[in-house]
Amino acid sequence: MRFIAREEIEPLPLLRESVAAIRDAYVAAIDGRAQLPPVGYLGFPNADCHVKFGHIAGDPIFVVKLSSGFYDNPARGLPSNNGIVIAASAHTGEIVAVLDDRGLLTQLRTAVGGAIATLALARQDARVIGIVGSGIQARQHLRALTAISDKPLEFHAWGRNLARVEEMAIDLSRENIVVAIAQDIRQLCAKADAIVTTTPASSPVIFSDWIRPGTHITAIGADSPGKQELESALVARADRLVMDLAHQCLDHGEFSAAHRQGLIDPGRCVELGAILSNRELGRRSNVEITIADLTGLAVQDIAITRTVLDLLHNAEQ
Amino acid sequence: MRFIAREEIEPLPLLRESVAAIRDAYVAAIDGRAQLPPVGYLGFPNADCHVKFGHIAGDPIFVVKLSSGFYDNPARGLPSNNGIVIAASAHTGEIVAVLDDRGLLTQLRTAVGGAIATLALARQDARVIGIVGSGIQARQHLRALTAISDKPLEFHAWGRNLARVEEMAIDLSRENIVVAIAQDIRQLCAKADAIVTTTPASSPVIFSDWIRPGTHITAIGADSPGKQELESALVARADRLVMDLAHQCLDHGEFSAAHRQGLIDPGRCVELGAILSNRELGRRSNVEITIADLTGLAVQDIAITRTVLDLLHNAEQ
Repeated sequence: MRFIAREEIEPLPLLRESVAAIRDAYVAAIDGRAQLPPVGYLGFPNADCHVKFGHIAGDPIFVVKLSSGFYDNPARGLPSNNGIVIAASAHTGEIVAVLDDRGLLTQLRTAVGGAIATLALARQDARVIGIVGSGIQARQHLRALTAISDKPLEFHAWGRNLARVEEMAIDLSRENIVVAIAQDIRQLCAKADAIVTTTPASSPVIFSDWIRPGTHITAIGADSPGKQELESALVARADRLVMDLAHQCLDHGEFSAAHRQGLIDPGRCVELGAILSNRELGRRSNVEITIADLTGLAVQDIAITRTVLDLLHNAEQ
Repeated sequence: MRFIAREEIEPLPLLRESVAAIRDAYVAAIDGRAQLPPVGYLGFPNADCHVKFGHIAGDPIFVVKLSSGFYDNPARGLPSNNGIVIAASAHTGEIVAVLDDRGLLTQLRTAVGGAIATLALARQDARVIGIVGSGIQARQHLRALTAISDKPLEFHAWGRNLARVEEMAIDLSRENIVVAIAQDIRQLCAKADAIVTTTPASSPVIFSDWIRPGTHITAIGADSPGKQELESALVARADRLVMDLAHQCLDHGEFSAAHRQGLIDPGRCVELGAILSNRELGRRSNVEITIADLTGLAVQDIAITRTVLDLLHNAEQ
């Protein structure tokens, strides 16, 4: 059994190196290769904990991941998110590795998944990316889009706390990522070809009227009941609704509010893996509004964990 | 975060020291104090993996446990069972400890739970204990009963593989535990005041005709669909049916076969925690046949993990 500290994981080029495995994970989630049981849940006062576990047929490992958000932590000077990843042999059950990543791998695989969806569904000529939020997911998405896109992108960011957005822009400028600060979210929406929302909002921050035809939106924030970033009318109006996993998105993702209100027909939603494997079309024209709702899958955790183990293994050869 | 190797856990007096916490865990499981979500499951060829997690209100930690059985392992010279336990803070979500116990804590908490049930439900004058099986659970039960009972007990063991039973008796004699070897399981049943069955049998090994009035049986082996150690007629005939958790036992425990055949009314089954907390009577006379069906609970994992952390903490003071 190998113990891998966060400090060993941080220097690895995971944003780029995990892309192929995470793309394949979305496909595995829908083509019958994956065991992907329901996500386990424990609740605490102003906190929650998810247990995700799964296996992709043929993979040498299976993964169990604990991730938690304790939202009173920042007031105590601690990060909200924590986590740990266990990789076990699918042949013998032996524990192969404990990755004491303190939530880093969840952040990275979420950002890589979001970037994959955004680049797959935005117009071919999309260059202006709007980021809503100024937390760790906003930052990781900016890094992931920069690492993965084969075209230069122009980033604009907006958040309720302008000082935090400025802080993010300064931090990222040190990594040679240029982020313009939008003073107004409507302006951001008017300008952006694609928008990534990364907030824990429980009521809409983006409204249908603000969105131009041809815009793509990737909604990352809503991952449990009660969270919602987009006005339901916008979800209802979109031409293409893409989900990482149907039952998760319709149950507790961004699409769940519109679904409960009877505004969308689940039959017109498409899973991301079907698009990435060319079974379904993604965007069908330059005027369609497309929305991707990503709730997070254990197969993404498997994919990034395997990437970590492979990179460390190769480094030691 | 503290990493605790199996070698640190092995010398701890857990069989005795975890009794109070495990008794309370059974009570917590039924009195509304515990979050005890459904057990997660992954399947592999001739192997399975369970993910158990939960929290007891007021406890400083919550626990996520991975345990696996890979039944082709012995042919490769490896133990079948593996596992790892994660303890996290219920206040901040931070990982408190990773217990690389390789399944030891599951063995111990199972044996302690079985011994608690056996001693709570056997007649007050019960002295002769019959053990069916010769694997790790048979051994741990003999140790747990010895550690916990306040009266001297007389052990008789039977298993299909007599050589393995002899081996077990020799091993335990080195720990001053005397185990007589029964040549015949019917003789064992005729002699025993209480019987503990610890086999992975998928068809009955004990039949109703063999069991005397006044006998108690604790059935440990059946923990997933298709496993069964006791003839359904014996379960139907018993005067008192005790379960660790109703929905688990009726779904995939020892009682599930009789339940599916319509031979038992779930309304007459009692949960162990209700007996240990004196809400319900256990054994009501010296002629009743009582059976306890134990499928294993995450709260037992919490209880023994807390005991490990407390013992290590106290040793360091």
